[in-house]
Amino acid sequence: MKRWIWFAFCGCVLGSSVAASGQKFGYLGDFPLENGQVIRDCRVGYRTFGRPNADTSNAVLFPTWFGGRSRDLRFHVRPGGLIDSSRYFIIAADALGNGVSSSPSNSKMQPGRNFPEFTIRDMVRSQYRLLTEILGIRHLYAVIGGSMGGMQIFRWIVDYPDFMDFAISYVGSPRLASPDILLWTIELRAIELASRTGGGPDTALPVISLLQSLLIRTPNWLASHIPRERVQDFITRSDSTYGQLFHPWNWAAQIRAMLSHDVSLPYGSLESAARRVRAKVLVIVSATDHIVNPEPALKFARMIGAKTLVLENECGHLAVGCEMARVSRAIATFLKE
Amino acid sequence: MKRWIWFAFCGCVLGSSVAASGQKFGYLGDFPLENGQVIRDCRVGYRTFGRPNADTSNAVLFPTWFGGRSRDLRFHVRPGGLIDSSRYFIIAADALGNGVSSSPSNSKMQPGRNFPEFTIRDMVRSQYRLLTEILGIRHLYAVIGGSMGGMQIFRWIVDYPDFMDFAISYVGSPRLASPDILLWTIELRAIELASRTGGGPDTALPVISLLQSLLIRTPNWLASHIPRERVQDFITRSDSTYGQLFHPWNWAAQIRAMLSHDVSLPYGSLESAARRVRAKVLVIVSATDHIVNPEPALKFARMIGAKTLVLENECGHLAVGCEMARVSRAIATFLKE
Repeated sequence: MKRWIWFAFCGCVLGSSVAASGQKFGYLGDFPLENGQVIRDCRVGYRTFGRPNADTSNAVLFPTWFGGRSRDLRFHVRPGGLIDSSRYFIIAADALGNGVSSSPSNSKMQPGRNFPEFTIRDMVRSQYRLLTEILGIRHLYAVIGGSMGGMQIFRWIVDYPDFMDFAISYVGSPRLASPDILLWTIELRAIELASRTGGGPDTALPVISLLQSLLIRTPNWLASHIPRERVQDFITRSDSTYGQLFHPWNWAAQIRAMLSHDVSLPYGSLESAARRVRAKVLVIVSATDHIVNPEPALKFARMIGAKTLVLENECGHLAVGCEMARVSRAIATFLKE
Repeated sequence: MKRWIWFAFCGCVLGSSVAASGQKFGYLGDFPLENGQVIRDCRVGYRTFGRPNADTSNAVLFPTWFGGRSRDLRFHVRPGGLIDSSRYFIIAADALGNGVSSSPSNSKMQPGRNFPEFTIRDMVRSQYRLLTEILGIRHLYAVIGGSMGGMQIFRWIVDYPDFMDFAISYVGSPRLASPDILLWTIELRAIELASRTGGGPDTALPVISLLQSLLIRTPNWLASHIPRERVQDFITRSDSTYGQLFHPWNWAAQIRAMLSHDVSLPYGSLESAARRVRAKVLVIVSATDHIVNPEPALKFARMIGAKTLVLENECGHLAVGCEMARVSRAIATFLKE
């Protein structure tokens, strides 16, 4: 079985030997959230790739996908990847709740279920504060992100419209379509069910690992790449892979952030939100995506006059990984406009 | 929200006012299974629709889908449905484990987890014995079934090749593809997880109901038919609908039967099994099916020279219901050949 089918969201590879730049943290103190609650002693993880030019006008923000960490982005920030760190100064930002930035799994004062509920908007504001207050960056050349990272991109261009020249969302969404809401509700229900067993919420892993592995590609991809005789091996590897990613309350917290994500809020409507956008935007979606339905992204792209790239391969949510050369070229061309 | 989106597998409607013919049972005594175990006091439920002609040469067997009951078939056995009971004498047979025929839920001597593990092959043999020993039928004009019923059809034409002239499988499979195996493994894992809570295995329902509702149609169908604002209503209805269908050990028993289903057994290979087939066969599949992948059925259809009808609408596993007039005509034409 090829290693690349074990990519988790949008292409992170576990345990690779490729060196990553060092993990850094920005400390925001007590961080107030949209809902009025506060993350105590909030920290935002990040790594940088490439070098800033003289006026830091080549800075690009790249937030993480669901369950992803800034270290997972190192495969995407080089020639032939999504964006080239020999040209751009890339700040890979750990999204709240990913186990690196402040999260249910690492909070001393608000651990586990006691961690306050945050939103995609809170993630983005934590990154804005990291950039402006800690890194001294007042403007970005671009923002780029995939999946839940792409959701953060839609939020970035609406909430901070003058902060970037370019924005790229791949397999992201301005707000979830109904199938996506069902998927994440199933996972929340599995965690809730598991939390009622003696083993605790971790015991949701066997359900969640297979659900992710079933839906992250398409049924046709699985049917043609995983023969019946190899399914048990596939299941074992899926459990192992997601076992390394899965923390039930981190998982639940980021899921809730995706479920509440809606860039029309607080602006009244998608149209009002769309009118705020100033950046040049490229929206990349997968027509076969079973995790982030492409329709809301395409609808918002039409509203803001964004360029779009619709991938139509059988790789589902991982479509970008199956056409990386094409996507890499499209992004490079877009960023030079 | 339209009532028809609440069709469960292949189109059963709960609580309809349409009259069904009466429930009958065939009693087989102690019924030996493939694995050497025995279902004690085995009964097979059935209903008949239409009238036999003088020599009963118009008899058609219609076994139930996963979780389905013979009463659910009444909508499909009339003009404009799948098969017309004004022309054919239809015996709708309750598959083992469906809560009507002998099942974990109704067995006095082998209740719940103590019910022996049966196979699709056992279901078919129980129906063969019902027909030959109790109803005195030595030959069928046709067999027809959908989803798990279609799996039984593939088993029928291989195990009893001279027993029918025509056979129709819709959204069925001669053995499951890898995505189908993953899906059912998730549901078994949810039941196993739930059985470790104080509430018992019934508490798997919230996970299973949404998983079924997510996968029985396509993401695109859901995105375009269920607006975000209606998702909570959809979830409530899904829980209610599956709450009426779901019994955890019946569910698990029929799932295990599907997982072990493989018409190549005990014949050594699919080719050997295919060479046994004598019936004229029509194989109907859905290209967008996320519950029963169409590839194994199409592959076996090629081996046996079957006619095929590939539906390409967005309705997923319920594709037949979305093109009923077309399918009805195709079946009627096929049966007159």
